[in-house]
Amino acid sequence: MNAVVDSKLPNSQVRRHPERGSYDRESAYPILDAGQIAHVGFTVEGQPYVIPMLYVRMDDLIYLHGSVGSRLLKHLTGGHPCCLTVTHVDGLVLARSHFSHSVNYRSVAVFGHARALSDLAHKGRVLACMVDALIPGRAADGRPADTSELVATSVLEVAIDELSVKVRSGGPKDLAADMDLRVWAGVLPQSVQVGAPLAADDLPAGIALPAYLSFAHATHAA
Amino acid sequence: MNAVVDSKLPNSQVRRHPERGSYDRESAYPILDAGQIAHVGFTVEGQPYVIPMLYVRMDDLIYLHGSVGSRLLKHLTGGHPCCLTVTHVDGLVLARSHFSHSVNYRSVAVFGHARALSDLAHKGRVLACMVDALIPGRAADGRPADTSELVATSVLEVAIDELSVKVRSGGPKDLAADMDLRVWAGVLPQSVQVGAPLAADDLPAGIALPAYLSFAHATHAA
Repeated sequence: MNAVVDSKLPNSQVRRHPERGSYDRESAYPILDAGQIAHVGFTVEGQPYVIPMLYVRMDDLIYLHGSVGSRLLKHLTGGHPCCLTVTHVDGLVLARSHFSHSVNYRSVAVFGHARALSDLAHKGRVLACMVDALIPGRAADGRPADTSELVATSVLEVAIDELSVKVRSGGPKDLAADMDLRVWAGVLPQSVQVGAPLAADDLPAGIALPAYLSFAHATHAA
Repeated sequence: MNAVVDSKLPNSQVRRHPERGSYDRESAYPILDAGQIAHVGFTVEGQPYVIPMLYVRMDDLIYLHGSVGSRLLKHLTGGHPCCLTVTHVDGLVLARSHFSHSVNYRSVAVFGHARALSDLAHKGRVLACMVDALIPGRAADGRPADTSELVATSVLEVAIDELSVKVRSGGPKDLAADMDLRVWAGVLPQSVQVGAPLAADDLPAGIALPAYLSFAHATHAA
């Protein structure tokens, strides 16, 4: 089987399958903007950690957030480098041989350093953007964070120093010698599906589903 | 907004939202087995990297693979620690306030060290299991890796030294003071959907879709 991304070392150079790699922000940003969760990697005393976190991209910056009590967030703002990776799996590629099985995917790895925001108004704008990144239009509907909530929240800004994009698409690439095998070959596409909204148990009667949630039941943009 | 996982440092201790955390393999393994891609973190000369990779769990071991030419895989087998994280996003949690928005998710972080397998038969069995982990029943249908393919493939075995599980489920948890806001609140469930199989352009006529792909169109186990 082909590794999904089997080398990207260092300076984010794509060495295996160079035809799948690029480094430009125009390729990377749509992939980042379509995601919900970044896997954020950092190192503490030689031990790597990989943590799933919500994020939002704004221009050439990525924002993360969490509790001010979080040791992870404190570490991330200590001048240490981090790597944020966002991956979409678009399909499974079924080849005639085990070896040629693969995955269609889009992935971006971002390399940078984090700093903590101190301006409360800036932090509030970022939190609103994080809400809208998940559900466009939602932020205007909810109550914005108040001062005590903003004080209790760390918002981290990661300047995108460098990035690496890897994408695979299309059908299986079998060896010529395998083409006569009587084995079904092709792609199983997959995507994220949004189900029917579940109202909170304590939602008062008479609050209708807002228009910005009318996309639910539709396939998530992938 | 609540961070998805905002602290897990060190020794994988869940410090924030301890009610969401556990460390037992019985909780972790179903989450690992339902996944397709692990985000694998490792450190090279102080720089963290996070790479998406296919994997399969077998007992208390996780297997990864890639090209023998991959610098990443060579690095991973150099005695360095790694962290593999698998995350499923099960829904978006819409609260009355920005601050209480959250995500329903299941995530496991595995801490361990990798070693490269040298026995070709063992490598071949692992590759077959990786195929079946993606699509149960598929491995018996495809051509197993031959000697040259096995020689060209690095298969890494990561013994699960330690792990950390974090899960959030259920509806929004708003402040009492926000309960009178006229804002829709609830959960948008989401899951991975498998679409209609796309036969390869060069698939000969007369090769029917195999029975083990009859699940396609159904929602992926999530």
